[in-house]
Amino acid sequence: MTTAEERLTRIRIVLCQTSHPGNIGAAARALKTMGLAQLVLVAPQKYPHPDATARASGAVDVLEAARVCATLDEALAGCVLAIGLSARHRELVGQVWSAREAAVEAIRHVSAGDVALVFGTEMFGLTNDEASRCQALAYIPSNPDYGSLNLAAAVQVLAYEIRMAAALVGGYAALTYRPAAQDEIAGLHRHAARTMRDLGFFNPERPRRLLPRLRRLFSRTRLEHEEVNILRGILASVDRALKRARSGKD
Amino acid sequence: MTTAEERLTRIRIVLCQTSHPGNIGAAARALKTMGLAQLVLVAPQKYPHPDATARASGAVDVLEAARVCATLDEALAGCVLAIGLSARHRELVGQVWSAREAAVEAIRHVSAGDVALVFGTEMFGLTNDEASRCQALAYIPSNPDYGSLNLAAAVQVLAYEIRMAAALVGGYAALTYRPAAQDEIAGLHRHAARTMRDLGFFNPERPRRLLPRLRRLFSRTRLEHEEVNILRGILASVDRALKRARSGKD
Repeated sequence: MTTAEERLTRIRIVLCQTSHPGNIGAAARALKTMGLAQLVLVAPQKYPHPDATARASGAVDVLEAARVCATLDEALAGCVLAIGLSARHRELVGQVWSAREAAVEAIRHVSAGDVALVFGTEMFGLTNDEASRCQALAYIPSNPDYGSLNLAAAVQVLAYEIRMAAALVGGYAALTYRPAAQDEIAGLHRHAARTMRDLGFFNPERPRRLLPRLRRLFSRTRLEHEEVNILRGILASVDRALKRARSGKD
Repeated sequence: MTTAEERLTRIRIVLCQTSHPGNIGAAARALKTMGLAQLVLVAPQKYPHPDATARASGAVDVLEAARVCATLDEALAGCVLAIGLSARHRELVGQVWSAREAAVEAIRHVSAGDVALVFGTEMFGLTNDEASRCQALAYIPSNPDYGSLNLAAAVQVLAYEIRMAAALVGGYAALTYRPAAQDEIAGLHRHAARTMRDLGFFNPERPRRLLPRLRRLFSRTRLEHEEVNILRGILASVDRALKRARSGKD
């Protein structure tokens, strides 16, 4: 049984003839943020290069582990599935998936071996020859008037979808707070009704919908214990002010 | 009935104090590829700048239409929901969504008005003060050992999820209430701070954490327009009582 993390290590991101070394570094960073580790460069135009290192940021390890190949065939050796990224339809490849579908298929296939996602150049994308070496094409749903994602941005979106498909949701620990008890909340509402009556804001003879509306507001927020104390503190300070006002008048 | 494309135009991408102008340009490109158009820059460190223009590529129109604001409050004026992007948990914001959940909520809310996605600096993300102005936080599921996405890459992932959510939104229930605008909520908080000061409950010289705590409480509840009016009505009646108290004493 493979874990989600292990599945991610079997995804190979293949960049063909990349022009700008900065994009190679940014792609390495995109891989690492999503837990991917295999970067393969087919005949990069300028590499190694300081721009690549700079843009890799904390992912220099992934960049330095990148394999450089002379041909796409070499890069794809040992893969059980190759998916080419393409903004446009190609006659020569039958299967076409959205990025999300492609990610699910990629993760389904890693139980059998490595899966490649193949990206073409910044300017022209994959050549027909490169696309024809892929079993399927994937596209990123985009603005029909301008669908030109930066290469590293496209890698980021695919790497993200692959992580989502691997059902690896990292991130936040559950919130730790002490919810208010129901009777504390009821006490708060009684206190508020009393103070608003003393203020002349609320008339118990003609209640309209004020109290239910306030109850609904504070129900949605799911009050914490300490918040009830703060709100009652505010009400108590209003009560004292009203008392001062009354004694001043007498 | 709004179309999916129209919904996208109501999403506002807000970048706070961005350090590198290249990231601003790359973000503009990310917006345009997904059909988003509203870019708002809060106190960018270097802008305009040739690096921004270069990285915008074919999205110079979105870059040139970007609004520059001095403060986050100004950037959020008129929004019905503000979602802050954050890699880490914040005590002062209750609601936490994954990027995918956040996109669905954002698209659900655009029927009522603009929705903002707020991004902090490259180095430190959002400040606590910025985060406390958002009703919810969103995180991009990522490698627990290295979750540091490039700023423009994070914008690309969110913009992509928003486009995906807009395309799917037919099935989502529209909002059945009128959410309060950000500036209404900001006005409520200012009014409350003033009244609590007059009550002697709040000392601006020693603010402790009272205001952020109250902001958090009311962020979680996602206030409705009419509820803001009710709460301000209560505050106004307290103000009148204090005035009476003062004149009574004189």
